[in-house]
Amino acid sequence: MNRRMVFYMVGQIIKLEAAVLLLPALVALLYGEACLWAILATAGVALACGFALTLISRPSTQVIFAREGFVIVALSWLALSAIGALPFFFSREIPDYIDAFFETVSGFSTTGASILPDVEALSHGLLFWRSFTHWIGGMGVLVLIMAIVPSVSGRNMHILRAEMPGPVVGKLMPRIRDTAKILYIIYLALTAAEILLLLVGGMPLFDSVVHAFGTAGTGGFGIKADSVAGYSPYLQWVISIFMLLFGVNFNLYYLILIRHAKTALKSRELWIYIAIVLGATTAIACNIAPLYGEFEETVRTSLFQVAAIITTTGYATADFNLWPSLSKGILLVLMFVGGCAGSTAGGLKISRVQLLINTVRRDLRRLLHPRSVGVIKMEGKRLDEASIAGTSAYFILYIVLLAVGSLLLSFEPFGMVTNFSAMITCINNVGPGFDLVGPAGNYSIYSPLSTLLLSFVMLFGRLEIYPMLFMLIPSTWTKK
Amino acid sequence: MNRRMVFYMVGQIIKLEAAVLLLPALVALLYGEACLWAILATAGVALACGFALTLISRPSTQVIFAREGFVIVALSWLALSAIGALPFFFSREIPDYIDAFFETVSGFSTTGASILPDVEALSHGLLFWRSFTHWIGGMGVLVLIMAIVPSVSGRNMHILRAEMPGPVVGKLMPRIRDTAKILYIIYLALTAAEILLLLVGGMPLFDSVVHAFGTAGTGGFGIKADSVAGYSPYLQWVISIFMLLFGVNFNLYYLILIRHAKTALKSRELWIYIAIVLGATTAIACNIAPLYGEFEETVRTSLFQVAAIITTTGYATADFNLWPSLSKGILLVLMFVGGCAGSTAGGLKISRVQLLINTVRRDLRRLLHPRSVGVIKMEGKRLDEASIAGTSAYFILYIVLLAVGSLLLSFEPFGMVTNFSAMITCINNVGPGFDLVGPAGNYSIYSPLSTLLLSFVMLFGRLEIYPMLFMLIPSTWTKK
Repeated sequence: MNRRMVFYMVGQIIKLEAAVLLLPALVALLYGEACLWAILATAGVALACGFALTLISRPSTQVIFAREGFVIVALSWLALSAIGALPFFFSREIPDYIDAFFETVSGFSTTGASILPDVEALSHGLLFWRSFTHWIGGMGVLVLIMAIVPSVSGRNMHILRAEMPGPVVGKLMPRIRDTAKILYIIYLALTAAEILLLLVGGMPLFDSVVHAFGTAGTGGFGIKADSVAGYSPYLQWVISIFMLLFGVNFNLYYLILIRHAKTALKSRELWIYIAIVLGATTAIACNIAPLYGEFEETVRTSLFQVAAIITTTGYATADFNLWPSLSKGILLVLMFVGGCAGSTAGGLKISRVQLLINTVRRDLRRLLHPRSVGVIKMEGKRLDEASIAGTSAYFILYIVLLAVGSLLLSFEPFGMVTNFSAMITCINNVGPGFDLVGPAGNYSIYSPLSTLLLSFVMLFGRLEIYPMLFMLIPSTWTKK
Repeated sequence: MNRRMVFYMVGQIIKLEAAVLLLPALVALLYGEACLWAILATAGVALACGFALTLISRPSTQVIFAREGFVIVALSWLALSAIGALPFFFSREIPDYIDAFFETVSGFSTTGASILPDVEALSHGLLFWRSFTHWIGGMGVLVLIMAIVPSVSGRNMHILRAEMPGPVVGKLMPRIRDTAKILYIIYLALTAAEILLLLVGGMPLFDSVVHAFGTAGTGGFGIKADSVAGYSPYLQWVISIFMLLFGVNFNLYYLILIRHAKTALKSRELWIYIAIVLGATTAIACNIAPLYGEFEETVRTSLFQVAAIITTTGYATADFNLWPSLSKGILLVLMFVGGCAGSTAGGLKISRVQLLINTVRRDLRRLLHPRSVGVIKMEGKRLDEASIAGTSAYFILYIVLLAVGSLLLSFEPFGMVTNFSAMITCINNVGPGFDLVGPAGNYSIYSPLSTLLLSFVMLFGRLEIYPMLFMLIPSTWTKK
């Protein structure tokens, strides 16, 4: 492996983080908060580390193979989180470093699980930073660097593939840099649109920006103890709809942008996504109707929770822990399904679930007719066997990871519902689980070791297993 | 589908059950028990139903395709259980029919989960019948009919494949009838050997026969409240070793029989099986050493529980519910792994787990080297892509079944550990789970609906999903 190249790239990313930290620093300055110095000190640390790494490891060749791509992505996300946790730690707003690390990983991985018992006690500067990590993590850090740094582009399809969610990554443009740029422009435009609509509804500017970040990255960090429940129905509707919009494959927005809306509307995944959302919302609304007063409130509450869970955002306007089993069961299934591939949502992704179902259906057909051909199509195109086997392999790894993680977490004395749902919600980057880690609870209950375990599981989930796995396999690191 | 053929075969099998019921009737007669009449009445019902079915549905053609094979197997097992439950019901020894049905399904599927709060109250005749269902279900009912009824053999590879566990079924002999015969002869010989060794150790004849049935089928119905814990260490060692022997692929015994022991010892699956058993026994022995006195007792207790769980027999000499988390975690993993393919054990089967791991490894290799060829070998032979994809599809179905079943069972108020482990232990045909359904508990706590659900899950597990699934898909039943 080209280790120099790996460390060089990680160094570049850390430098970028130093620059990005100036935004929360500005917020802290405006509010005249003490956390300003913690943020600036962190930016200094990032800059020093970044320059040290790039100076030491300047690579002789610039070739990136798949192996390097995976490790660069995994290490970058770890480094970003390790450094990104410092402002919380330096300012003593989160006195324990492992807790601060968990919070930051939860931010970048767009999980939204929090160890904070009282989020409202945090300063504006750090609340902003916390939500900003969602926005950065949603579209991907390396996609960002590809979009803005010209020197590293052009040979990075491996990185894009490693960081982008979903079973198949489509290049929108011949040049990767242009693809990355377009993705970020769409992302920025949608975020701006949400901020505007929230402002129109009377939400303060700070709240609007922070909630738009959390929605865009499908993260879910709130700034109130009751998440979004305290805001007006209009604002809840706006956030619901934008959560759903950010769960759609961004390629479709690009198609609409270049006036191929017809092609975009032919996407099978999109229609399945819409069907699941409508179906789940209706079922839950009927199920919880006795708990709520008016029709509008019932539908709004149901839709909000469905959107928050299927897109793995994790905002809440109700404590679904108190709902009947049927509703909880539906939400649990949605946690696994997740949003569309190529969106900022987590979970297995709808197109991957589709592919798994098609794999099973082909197998059932083959059992009855051993000589049947067995082609699997996705969005009208025939899939090659390697992609089909790859998706099955991903599912196997995913289940094994879930099982191993749950076993390790079973040493915690909080009961299986809490532990198992914590693992499910972290691997799928949702945020709230059930029981003690439900919408009204938080993750401060866990021991430092379990907090670290859950942090790693969130990164495994966000990066779709492979980058983290390759980073941890020793043979990846041997020189060839 | 050739429905006439399906019902004709089911009729034949029910007739066979009538004959098989004469054995427990004989036991009841010897002990002079009242249940004799319940057993004879059931034999009468079976005979009447069997003749009615075969008379009505005598088929014009005798062709069996895969579709018919699956449905014949599923319906036969359902019919056998429905009728096999009658002696318990008629005699009022299990007054509730659904409970009796559960107990009988648990017997035939070799699960060994029981709804009886006090097993020692049962009559000898019914205790015998209960354990005899293990013995019949272990090797397969349709394999039996193929071995003894000449007219239905020769075109039944589809049935053998549907009923035999494991991802790949090897024909030992060119003619299926001979394969079925050899399997039953090995099965009978091993069972006889165990009975003999138990008698030598001073176990009464009745107890020896019943425990040998439970071991051979890897079932696990005991006749004492404390399962096997009350018997001498020698007897516990004998049962441990025979449980492990029945977890080995029967093809290997055939190879030894025809003096190809060298080929048999080359089996990778066998060595992995031995390694897992030794590793798990050592780990658990170290972990539970403080709870037990002597070295021999610790090792014996550890090996017995490991053998009972990995072969999915489910006998117990200790309540592992009270063991430390590590030991419980290891046993939980063994429940999923199961024994070797082609044995009477349940679970995923070792060769299937091997294949799933190889699928993941090939995918990881392909991610790094997209042009690598990616051959997967099993026991030295190259596997075709359909088998590989088929095993992944099986795993997906298995997880979906587990998830759907657990969701449905989550309505029961017994906590997630009890409910989830009940589902795991039923799908893998183990028997005891954790908490309320642990070795010291039983399944009488569940509502009739959940009892039925668990009964179906046991059949899904024993028949490896496909037969039950095809039976439940309406399109299977349409005429072509």
